[in-house]
Amino acid sequence: MTITQQAALENLYAGFAAAGLMPLWTQRDDLMPAVPKPGAVPHVWRWANLMPLAEQSARLVPVGRGGERRAIALSNPGLPGLPYATATLWAAIQYLGPREMAPSHRHTQSAFRFVVEGEGVWTNVDGDAIAMRRGDLLLTPSWAYHEHHNATDRPMAWLDGLDIPLVRTLDAGFFEFGPDNLATTATPDRSRGERLWGHPGLRPIGQPAQPNSPLAAYRWEHTDAALASQLELEEEGAAGVIEPGHAGVRFTNPTTGRDALVTIRTEMHRLSSGTRTQPARNVGSAVWQVFDGQAVMVIGDQRFQVMTGDLFAVPSWCELALEAETNVDLFRFGDEPVYEALGLARREPAVSE
Amino acid sequence: MTITQQAALENLYAGFAAAGLMPLWTQRDDLMPAVPKPGAVPHVWRWANLMPLAEQSARLVPVGRGGERRAIALSNPGLPGLPYATATLWAAIQYLGPREMAPSHRHTQSAFRFVVEGEGVWTNVDGDAIAMRRGDLLLTPSWAYHEHHNATDRPMAWLDGLDIPLVRTLDAGFFEFGPDNLATTATPDRSRGERLWGHPGLRPIGQPAQPNSPLAAYRWEHTDAALASQLELEEEGAAGVIEPGHAGVRFTNPTTGRDALVTIRTEMHRLSSGTRTQPARNVGSAVWQVFDGQAVMVIGDQRFQVMTGDLFAVPSWCELALEAETNVDLFRFGDEPVYEALGLARREPAVSE
Amino acid sequence: MTITQQAALENLYAGFAAAGLMPLWTQRDDLMPAVPKPGAVPHVWRWANLMPLAEQSARLVPVGRGGERRAIALSNPGLPGLPYATATLWAAIQYLGPREMAPSHRHTQSAFRFVVEGEGVWTNVDGDAIAMRRGDLLLTPSWAYHEHHNATDRPMAWLDGLDIPLVRTLDAGFFEFGPDNLATTATPDRSRGERLWGHPGLRPIGQPAQPNSPLAAYRWEHTDAALASQLELEEEGAAGVIEPGHAGVRFTNPTTGRDALVTIRTEMHRLSSGTRTQPARNVGSAVWQVFDGQAVMVIGDQRFQVMTGDLFAVPSWCELALEAETNVDLFRFGDEPVYEALGLARREPAVSE
Amino acid sequence: MTITQQAALENLYAGFAAAGLMPLWTQRDDLMPAVPKPGAVPHVWRWANLMPLAEQSARLVPVGRGGERRAIALSNPGLPGLPYATATLWAAIQYLGPREMAPSHRHTQSAFRFVVEGEGVWTNVDGDAIAMRRGDLLLTPSWAYHEHHNATDRPMAWLDGLDIPLVRTLDAGFFEFGPDNLATTATPDRSRGERLWGHPGLRPIGQPAQPNSPLAAYRWEHTDAALASQLELEEEGAAGVIEPGHAGVRFTNPTTGRDALVTIRTEMHRLSSGTRTQPARNVGSAVWQVFDGQAVMVIGDQRFQVMTGDLFAVPSWCELALEAETNVDLFRFGDEPVYEALGLARREPAVSE
Repeated sequence: MTITQQAALENLYAGFAAAGLMPLWTQRDDLMPAVPKPGAVPHVWRWANLMPLAEQSARLVPVGRGGERRAIALSNPGLPGLPYATATLWAAIQYLGPREMAPSHRHTQSAFRFVVEGEGVWTNVDGDAIAMRRGDLLLTPSWAYHEHHNATDRPMAWLDGLDIPLVRTLDAGFFEFGPDNLATTATPDRSRGERLWGHPGLRPIGQPAQPNSPLAAYRWEHTDAALASQLELEEEGAAGVIEPGHAGVRFTNPTTGRDALVTIRTEMHRLSSGTRTQPARNVGSAVWQVFDGQAVMVIGDQRFQVMTGDLFAVPSWCELALEAETNVDLFRFGDEPVYEALGLARREPAVSE
Repeated sequence: MTITQQAALENLYAGFAAAGLMPLWTQRDDLMPAVPKPGAVPHVWRWANLMPLAEQSARLVPVGRGGERRAIALSNPGLPGLPYATATLWAAIQYLGPREMAPSHRHTQSAFRFVVEGEGVWTNVDGDAIAMRRGDLLLTPSWAYHEHHNATDRPMAWLDGLDIPLVRTLDAGFFEFGPDNLATTATPDRSRGERLWGHPGLRPIGQPAQPNSPLAAYRWEHTDAALASQLELEEEGAAGVIEPGHAGVRFTNPTTGRDALVTIRTEMHRLSSGTRTQPARNVGSAVWQVFDGQAVMVIGDQRFQVMTGDLFAVPSWCELALEAETNVDLFRFGDEPVYEALGLARREPAVSE
Repeated sequence: MTITQQAALENLYAGFAAAGLMPLWTQRDDLMPAVPKPGAVPHVWRWANLMPLAEQSARLVPVGRGGERRAIALSNPGLPGLPYATATLWAAIQYLGPREMAPSHRHTQSAFRFVVEGEGVWTNVDGDAIAMRRGDLLLTPSWAYHEHHNATDRPMAWLDGLDIPLVRTLDAGFFEFGPDNLATTATPDRSRGERLWGHPGLRPIGQPAQPNSPLAAYRWEHTDAALASQLELEEEGAAGVIEPGHAGVRFTNPTTGRDALVTIRTEMHRLSSGTRTQPARNVGSAVWQVFDGQAVMVIGDQRFQVMTGDLFAVPSWCELALEAETNVDLFRFGDEPVYEALGLARREPAVSE
Repeated sequence: MTITQQAALENLYAGFAAAGLMPLWTQRDDLMPAVPKPGAVPHVWRWANLMPLAEQSARLVPVGRGGERRAIALSNPGLPGLPYATATLWAAIQYLGPREMAPSHRHTQSAFRFVVEGEGVWTNVDGDAIAMRRGDLLLTPSWAYHEHHNATDRPMAWLDGLDIPLVRTLDAGFFEFGPDNLATTATPDRSRGERLWGHPGLRPIGQPAQPNSPLAAYRWEHTDAALASQLELEEEGAAGVIEPGHAGVRFTNPTTGRDALVTIRTEMHRLSSGTRTQPARNVGSAVWQVFDGQAVMVIGDQRFQVMTGDLFAVPSWCELALEAETNVDLFRFGDEPVYEALGLARREPAVSE
């Protein structure tokens, strides 16, 4: 290129900048890569590190209006400065001290709670009091009022999962404070939602279909039984498991059979000790938490050993295999429903669903 | 009309007949009535009459190939000569003596079994052995192989419901014999289908959606608990019942949230003693069976007292109210999904679903 | 069987009759045949026979309230005494003399008009005046008010297609008279529905999806062009035709892409002279009308030669092949959407749609 | 707060940073605002500025492999350094000199072309040659190979719209080069896709439904006629327009009735001179281009006068009204289908669709 040409080009690019324009040709490869090049990286957060910091927070930071929640978010090292576990998913440890209360609010972001240990907190969702216990998954769907209160003298911590990054990117977030006082101080064993919806295949007549699940709590006893059954069926030579030694259930909306939340997939996996899953990858990201046991997450030539409570982020299109060092149960949440709804889903190897 | 005109008209009608034609104008009102004028009439069949005849059949008529089943169909008096409970629904008592077996076959007609009393028979559906017990609903979806065998020394009877009249009218029936020998003689307490699918809101990962429910058995313990919960919630002032004193659940396909069978709606209703339901009618027909208790079915100025085991047919667009003389549980099946799929559904009073 | 047994059996069957019951085992094969055994038979009605009878009717039978329409229905010889072309479909020639008017009414039955020759009548659908011309398909969806008036001094006849048999079997028919006077006497070239919806792929913003097509008229010029294009594309070696020499379009609802009417499929087929279609059959029935040209309908070893205006009924699961003796256009309507909605569709050879 | 407390808090936050964590309570309001707070701002890009820069580019920058396209993107001033018109939408001017060719590639990003002036380029989509003319909308759906070639001695420019920002955020982009030589040099007036699919309400039999429209070109003559009809119907007192003086059509997929592209809504609006639209806002963003005429875009107390060719970005939840200073036609594309699919759609005032 001659100096004259070079000058003309610089002049052109200055013109672009002045007019609020940018050329495609200088950045096409970055904007439109051959395969997804996520900023987020595979990463482990250790439960052993998280809990002391959560406890320390409880001593220093009150829970209340404005901050709203004592939640500590996983920040992916590949997304510096952002409290995002992956490009679309938020994962945080929420901690509530004895007798503490997190006030009512609602937002268009979808949310769930998953309890890796402890109990004693009730989450009220639109006025329905839902006990939180080890192994339970609780939903707070988009735009439902919710508040948490610890009815005991012991602290409790759990995992919060939300689609905050997705909703923020889409500029789709609405947020409202609810009343400052608890909607209910009841501490029933079973919520009204469970009593109405928690019967297999049975639907209250006249209750309409809805995009998010009306079953606000999925109890560990059912999840555990379903996983155990799959492995027993496998031993009997019957169908059921995902692959040899690998059972799994998806939490679904009983009014549609689809994911419990419109934008977030939630699942529990159980691997028999010694199982190695087939390497697989999909467009979209996920966060895993070890519920019980010990495993190795294998991504390419990287190996991450994880144990109870540890959290692990898997970015888009990263091939993952799991190796179970003990019998191991893993909770997983991901954003696949977003891609399926937008015609952007891909998976290798392909599965028919 | 002159004699000449009359003769000309007769000549015209003779011409129609010869050409394979029929005029609309002489029969428009019959073909296109202002409101549905079903041939079927409201009718009760008494359990007290049915069972002796079923037992008598067992002494005289073997079960086997060709006849296939010892099933005795309800024949609506308004549809003389047809073994149809209503225009679209087949309802029959099936009876299996001690150690008897009903051989394997499959058909495009959808079917279910509902057990009003007794136990000891296993229905094998595509090789999965499903125990039949009081209060249970069992599915044999379209084109699934199924066979029944009585593993005990006592006879057992139950209700069979199918869409035989609909499928026959539509000329859509296919039928195939299966193997002559039982696919399995196992008598497990829980079927494989229940172990895989019978967990509230939990779906085995990777199992695809399907038009009919993969949950082949809906057990009474769950149905009973769901109904009891609705009435308890009502007492607490919470939502759940259909109307005051009237609880109800629909049996659904957990992969879609829709009816368990594509063409047949199945439901269980519970009325507190003294409850009178709001009169309602819908396009399409239904058959009710009293599972437990005593009630009056009111259609216009007709009153039909029914008790445990009695069956009752409700034709299209007949307004029905129920009066519970005791606490009463009623099983109901109907053809509403057909009308909903074809844009022909109507209901008074309207409900939003 | 001993005389005693025989007597016991007769006694049993008498007991059944007295109790309103019928056994399955004596009629299983008839109720549940191995493959569909339709009552309707393949049959041709000749245009040359139909038109003189229609004209004769016009001289003898007025059009007016009660009879409502001067429509002469095809009565399948296999369904004696019923004005049904097939088990689910009604087909009739409707005839309107000069300046005559057929009064307004509406019904839940779905209807269309297809014009094999002539013009001059306007069908008003919910007040929108729609010209009827040769080759046009006009819809009068379920529960839309409609009336016809002949604005000329010449008579006009056309084909009416409805789902009267289906709706009658389902006891789902509602019918209402409209005003006695014409909603409009306008005779525009294009209806409002066409002006709003008759633009390829363009949808008026804010108009909701609806189960039946809002495009009340499908004009011959478009149908003809679409069929011609498919055969031209075939000549160029490009995809488009159904099979060699066989073009076809389906009339669809632009708000859903599905059939124009919920319960009736409507199509136009064009065969190049000499084409023989692959024999095929499906569950469900159809009626064909030759629009232009001459062909042979082949069902098994039966051959029916048909020409312009002739109508032909094809019952369920009858294998049909067409042989084009000239270039030939055929209008076809069938009930496939009913079977697809109810999980009862089958076709040989299978097609993926 | 004491110095000790302050130190403890700083220590806590350092602990968070070291552990890859971030607290919610310090940034809740930013992450979860009360209403969407888009980074993007309302902004106009002037056609008068764009075209000279595009022409200048043509003299300095060749089109070819790597850069792939001579496309100049609108960069929203609220999203500095990003070639994004809004948070989810890419809009660019693409320019092709006489006889130039832009090589074949495909990507999971959905794309369209809209032609505000000129003609002479053919876009080949999966081998089908599609002429580009003034007022036409052309689709290149996700993962379809496409290439452009200018068959004339005059340059041509047009608007490219894609979901590049969305797909990049979601890490869902795949990209492949196609052959270096043109798939076809044909320059037909009508593409094969139009010949097969461009007939109102008519669908080639046996062509399956698909997520993106198979009608690759929406011609101006049809769009113009549809808009004119709506305004004529309004004058006649009939329904059709969106609101007084405001006609609009949406480009749809004839196999589903839904948006032509899964992730992008495309529409053309026509306002009669003097019309002022009702202010409205929705979650999600849009880009408008004036096709013909002159108008004012009003956002709050900001007024932006725009004329033929000018482009205008409207971020999420910004209330917009249009004032037509002449009769004016405006092309609009937006991301609403994304929000509708994810349960995140909101609009004020509400419309029922």
